[in-house]
Amino acid sequence: MSRFLLLFGFALNALIGLSLANEPAWGYRCEHSNCKKVELTEENKKTAVSLSVCRLFCDEVYGTLWPKPTGEIAPSNEVVKINLHDITFKTNNFKLYPAYWAMATDRFLEMQKKKFPTKYSVKSGGNPLVIEVLVDSDDMTFNLDTYEGYKLKIVDQDGVHAIVTAKNFYGARNALESLSQLIVYDNIRNEIVIVSSTEFSDEPKFKYRAILLDTSRNYFSIEAIKRTIEGMAMVKLNTFHWHITDSQSFPMVVKSHPDLSKLGAYSPDKIYTAEDIKDVVRFAKARGIRVLPEFDAPAHVGEGWQKKGLTTCFNAQPWKDFCVEAPCGQLAVHKDELYDVLEDIYREMVENFEYPDLFHMGGDEVSVSCWNSSADLQKWMLNKNWGLTDKDFMRLWGHFQSNAISRLDKVNINKTQVILWTSHLTEEPFLSQYLNNERYIIQIWTTGDDPKVKTILEKGYKMIVSNYDALYFDCGFGAWVTDGNNWCSPYIGWQKVYDNRMENIAGNYVNQVYGAAAALWSEQVDEFALDAKLWPRASALAERLWSDPEGGWKSAESRMLVNRRRLVDIAGIAAERLQPEWCLQNEGDCPI
Amino acid sequence: MSRFLLLFGFALNALIGLSLANEPAWGYRCEHSNCKKVELTEENKKTAVSLSVCRLFCDEVYGTLWPKPTGEIAPSNEVVKINLHDITFKTNNFKLYPAYWAMATDRFLEMQKKKFPTKYSVKSGGNPLVIEVLVDSDDMTFNLDTYEGYKLKIVDQDGVHAIVTAKNFYGARNALESLSQLIVYDNIRNEIVIVSSTEFSDEPKFKYRAILLDTSRNYFSIEAIKRTIEGMAMVKLNTFHWHITDSQSFPMVVKSHPDLSKLGAYSPDKIYTAEDIKDVVRFAKARGIRVLPEFDAPAHVGEGWQKKGLTTCFNAQPWKDFCVEAPCGQLAVHKDELYDVLEDIYREMVENFEYPDLFHMGGDEVSVSCWNSSADLQKWMLNKNWGLTDKDFMRLWGHFQSNAISRLDKVNINKTQVILWTSHLTEEPFLSQYLNNERYIIQIWTTGDDPKVKTILEKGYKMIVSNYDALYFDCGFGAWVTDGNNWCSPYIGWQKVYDNRMENIAGNYVNQVYGAAAALWSEQVDEFALDAKLWPRASALAERLWSDPEGGWKSAESRMLVNRRRLVDIAGIAAERLQPEWCLQNEGDCPI
Repeated sequence: MSRFLLLFGFALNALIGLSLANEPAWGYRCEHSNCKKVELTEENKKTAVSLSVCRLFCDEVYGTLWPKPTGEIAPSNEVVKINLHDITFKTNNFKLYPAYWAMATDRFLEMQKKKFPTKYSVKSGGNPLVIEVLVDSDDMTFNLDTYEGYKLKIVDQDGVHAIVTAKNFYGARNALESLSQLIVYDNIRNEIVIVSSTEFSDEPKFKYRAILLDTSRNYFSIEAIKRTIEGMAMVKLNTFHWHITDSQSFPMVVKSHPDLSKLGAYSPDKIYTAEDIKDVVRFAKARGIRVLPEFDAPAHVGEGWQKKGLTTCFNAQPWKDFCVEAPCGQLAVHKDELYDVLEDIYREMVENFEYPDLFHMGGDEVSVSCWNSSADLQKWMLNKNWGLTDKDFMRLWGHFQSNAISRLDKVNINKTQVILWTSHLTEEPFLSQYLNNERYIIQIWTTGDDPKVKTILEKGYKMIVSNYDALYFDCGFGAWVTDGNNWCSPYIGWQKVYDNRMENIAGNYVNQVYGAAAALWSEQVDEFALDAKLWPRASALAERLWSDPEGGWKSAESRMLVNRRRLVDIAGIAAERLQPEWCLQNEGDCPI
Repeated sequence: MSRFLLLFGFALNALIGLSLANEPAWGYRCEHSNCKKVELTEENKKTAVSLSVCRLFCDEVYGTLWPKPTGEIAPSNEVVKINLHDITFKTNNFKLYPAYWAMATDRFLEMQKKKFPTKYSVKSGGNPLVIEVLVDSDDMTFNLDTYEGYKLKIVDQDGVHAIVTAKNFYGARNALESLSQLIVYDNIRNEIVIVSSTEFSDEPKFKYRAILLDTSRNYFSIEAIKRTIEGMAMVKLNTFHWHITDSQSFPMVVKSHPDLSKLGAYSPDKIYTAEDIKDVVRFAKARGIRVLPEFDAPAHVGEGWQKKGLTTCFNAQPWKDFCVEAPCGQLAVHKDELYDVLEDIYREMVENFEYPDLFHMGGDEVSVSCWNSSADLQKWMLNKNWGLTDKDFMRLWGHFQSNAISRLDKVNINKTQVILWTSHLTEEPFLSQYLNNERYIIQIWTTGDDPKVKTILEKGYKMIVSNYDALYFDCGFGAWVTDGNNWCSPYIGWQKVYDNRMENIAGNYVNQVYGAAAALWSEQVDEFALDAKLWPRASALAERLWSDPEGGWKSAESRMLVNRRRLVDIAGIAAERLQPEWCLQNEGDCPI
């Protein structure tokens, strides 16, 4: 639908005599729900609108929001100029945890400033913006029961008032994110404008909305991790799944076992100290994001463990005989002293990750041939009158899992649910035999249509979805152990991510799905190309999980382009460009 | 082969009492031509070598050089510490153009400083390095006859002397590039070392070694363009092919026709002024790189031409009926006044690109249905008693080409060879009929094994190779006009680029191949993800063209990893990571 746009008189008055050094040549008008270019002339300049303002109203209500709110939106067709120097917050602030709230409001103000092109100074004048925030609770707990919804109302009376209603900090923060998306830069008048009146409520459809980053195959600086979290906050993703160690490197400093990172980090600089981790956790919390620790075991260990004598098949060659990529390595799960080391690692992780509500134990790609290459381990099994069949090794893995979880529980004040990747152990009969469905959440990484998924759901397990055919963002590049393309090629376009519906994967069991995670395994990426591999594809996942819209990617395309631009402009994220800029400027003219 | 490494005594003396805050845990030793990790101990520290030094000698002579020199190399197995504060140049400098030589030497010194980790200050002490440069000529002309080779000799006598012999600036510059690659940072001793003695000559196998960047589908800042050119210089690529305009935008400012960029640029900022272009041309020249202008016509025009009345089918919809992507647009080649505008454009381009030795006229993807949609154009053809068949439209294109080239010649002091993309016009009988093989170089973008390639060569044309199945770096991502993957998927790994041999494409006619260009069409990339799409794949092309090694990618893999790291560290290029850092640190343990 097309809407006629009114602009407030005083905004227009400011135009008289305005002469920018670089005046734009084009304005826009809304035609058949598309913003169309109109050459700017002296005559039409007063009524012409900029692309950003046109996109607010023309495409959908509002074309700048991402993810799309789930509640009904009171439409509007007016914008009003605001004064960036006159934005104030009024809160019943005894109800908000002050340090985090200060971080959230400072961030909001910073985001608005970044909307102004750097070459121009912020113009004075415009309406004050008062943001009134009403919350019920100052509880900063964040877990799967936390309500992340909010209500947002904007009225234009004696200045612009934005009224946020939420149960807690997290809902309020999400409201600020949406509010920010209703504030845009008008390049025709060189001013910042806001939708002058609207009202809607909003809450997510899925409670777990994650990005996984693997910081072991390659190292990522804290700065790169924070930039990722900043992008997540902008699209209301709420979980940074930190796959912090693996066989290739052990960047996490464990104070009680300094040899792990000393020998296991790629260099003395490429580490994460306790302070680094806590810094990331707090940075994320202020943005409504949990940092989920993953300590992948009993496979995917190696570097760092050299002096422990607690691994089997470390860097065995040819690696293909013992594991899926170099270097091989698995924990010597038969040794009792292993569990003391694990307890130390868990203790420090639980503390550094500030008592997480969930803990990921990995469980990815355990290789029987690796364990079976250890005479010592074989002897231990035979001494227990076990065999050396596949089934026996699953029993061994069950033994590990049971010991590991009891050590975790010992040091963790939250008796958290534990997440495991799908594996041979998550197939029947082992699944029911060794993994309690009250304790374990299963994260699937098989294809979305694999019948194994249904089996797990039928057994009553909660699930996190990372089907590799839609959510493995490392797919589609060159191979790295030989030539050709990597194993999970082709590259997954944002459209496929967007259309990856939980109900298509889980069917009638969709209520057992907590949500999903996009995974960036880092064999072929480090912080230099990180942003383009995550963004804007992670935004597609964000809207699928928050809004779960009935429509597919086509109806989201023009908003996606606006969202991508925002990630670049506001968060400094070097996101992939999806189309020629021409397609952003000529809405609807590019697709077939 | 494995070599025993000696280190100079005085370098070792500096070690005594050395205690860095972050001492590395690992040193290296060369075993069976691979650098293997060795835990550093008090005992082995004096003789241990760092990874960078090990790679110099262990893998190949020398494992840090990229592209590999073509002359025989006198091996060495010693390094010596140099003093970054004491590097001097001695030249017979009346023979070198002073401004460019100053740029080249300043750049060399800057590159050395960047080898030192920023957290450490440059250690004093070490040998002076004197670089003696002997050249025959101060002629700064660069064309297909320019000799780019050089000789480099390093001797350690009263300080380290590097003696460069070259015919001209370009050869001397290339020598400095290689010299720089023989200077590495030793992270065990925190010092900069150089190979203490060697000698080799080097010259390229192919004379045209290019990257194409399309700055029309998306805009790239001058900074991004310079960063690209900097990377090219580091691997001795010598041509930046600037596809500066297209249908989607016209960022090039043409002073005599300001409407072209005013209406055609994506925004008033997203332009290239005459000064911008000259700045890029000089920046490139100091790095041994020609900037090749492409003005693509008669198709691939559109934005910017709105007021000229000189186009047909501009933004015709549905675009699929008239061209290969939105927006459609072709020049109205029947109108005489078009050629006056073209002459103006050519005049300014020739001047701004500082009288280039080659000019690219595009000629990509002309659509008969576009021209045929213009009643006016049809009438003109019928008035000449032409028909409206395919053959007639090729005649029309021939008419354009003949007029365009005569206008170019009118304004160009160099009567340059002109490059055209393969098309229907470069097929027989049109090729021989309309394109003189003395004037036109054909740039192929079909597959490497397309029989059309041989036909062109048989007719005596010179050729530039951009076979899309190995050299189109935009392939393999998501589609942008619909879902799925883009037209030329899959993604091309660096291995395929490396193994794309000119003789496999041109066979016995390989002497007609000037070289090749990797093309980055920019529908789906802008400056934010630019680096990762170009690098390090463009390095693979660079070595294929400079060295044309007999071996394939496998024998280059470990050097490639060193090269990628150098692009990141020295040029600040956000190059793609090819493998886990583990593979760099554990040479030979990753590949199958």
